[in-house]
Amino acid sequence: MRLAELSERSGVSTATIKYYLREGLLPPGRRVTATQAEYDEEHLRRLRLVRALVQVGRVPVATAREVLTAVEDETAGQVDRLGAAVGSLPHGPAPAPADPATAAAEHTAEEVLRLLGWGHHPENPAHGMLVSALAALGRLDYPCGIEHVLPYGRAAATIAEHELAVIEDLDAPTTQLEAAVALTVLYEPVLLALRRLAQAREAGRRFGSGTETETNDGPPHEAEGR
Amino acid sequence: MRLAELSERSGVSTATIKYYLREGLLPPGRRVTATQAEYDEEHLRRLRLVRALVQVGRVPVATAREVLTAVEDETAGQVDRLGAAVGSLPHGPAPAPADPATAAAEHTAEEVLRLLGWGHHPENPAHGMLVSALAALGRLDYPCGIEHVLPYGRAAATIAEHELAVIEDLDAPTTQLEAAVALTVLYEPVLLALRRLAQAREAGRRFGSGTETETNDGPPHEAEGR
Repeated sequence: MRLAELSERSGVSTATIKYYLREGLLPPGRRVTATQAEYDEEHLRRLRLVRALVQVGRVPVATAREVLTAVEDETAGQVDRLGAAVGSLPHGPAPAPADPATAAAEHTAEEVLRLLGWGHHPENPAHGMLVSALAALGRLDYPCGIEHVLPYGRAAATIAEHELAVIEDLDAPTTQLEAAVALTVLYEPVLLALRRLAQAREAGRRFGSGTETETNDGPPHEAEGR
Repeated sequence: MRLAELSERSGVSTATIKYYLREGLLPPGRRVTATQAEYDEEHLRRLRLVRALVQVGRVPVATAREVLTAVEDETAGQVDRLGAAVGSLPHGPAPAPADPATAAAEHTAEEVLRLLGWGHHPENPAHGMLVSALAALGRLDYPCGIEHVLPYGRAAATIAEHELAVIEDLDAPTTQLEAAVALTVLYEPVLLALRRLAQAREAGRRFGSGTETETNDGPPHEAEGR
């Protein structure tokens, strides 16, 4: 397909597609004349991932390029490619300074991961993100002990199990990798929004009065087929 | 205590404290002389919450002021104050446009919340955040059906149950409210980091090879007292 069709089918403007091509986020099309190139379904799929990262996930363009490079690295196994791709995503504020709060946070993180049976992977950027977040809690003297953090880990384990099952159902290994990266980014706001809704619900149950008592407190209905 | 001691005990510079005072994020101290004011434990506690929101959670100052106003509103019940405070927090990108993807996302959100038995609260900003995130997934043609979203809701419910139990253990109603708001913000990166670690673990189990097989795959050890 030509650039105009790629734009129409992807919903991304031709100017933006040209920008992604220049920045190396999309592989070049197959030249057919001096001024025209031909694009295929793979371009369309890749464009979808780029939009998920850049437009929805607000991942910086340079970071998105690193993520895509990892996805494409056919010399590595699938787990390592996924790890490298997700590891290239932004991981929040810079590592915490080496203060007592960070030391305590490192101890907590290590114990929580040990109790979950996940092993200790300090080289994973998500490990640094966890330690920073726990250290910030500790510095402000908010609850952040092993028993406070463990329930989040258990919930994360059930989520990850579901997510990998969804990803495994997809066709090709490359599609799986792309979806894994996109879903990692795109489901973050879903999870955070549901957590806030769940908190409101739970606060209503515990401290409830006023408007909150009007919520549907009955047992969940049966799922309707859809 | 004087400003210098407030700064020392909170770890916030005197310049930043003065800025927070000017912006109304901290109530003024009790004047003792023309140039000096006296601060108390409540200032220290409030400063901790402001730091959690502004410095760690990157909440804009104007937004933080709205959150604090809601926390302090003694005319409202605790659930409503908590709802208003958390509702004032940033909720990601602006609401999605009224397109078919948004209509589908609204339907999915409503069904998921009904199946969870949480009731339908479109006035909660987290509801809009959920619909936007699901619409973005739908526009990019990634899996976002009821069966895909429900497991996140179930995980969020177990997290919220744990969180409200932690909050209920705290002393005074105001302290509970402040902690609820701070923990909502500060535990977001904890949850997201643990999700990424859980994904890496689960990917290793499913597609595992190479480095991932070296992880501790045995049963979790017993918790050590701490």
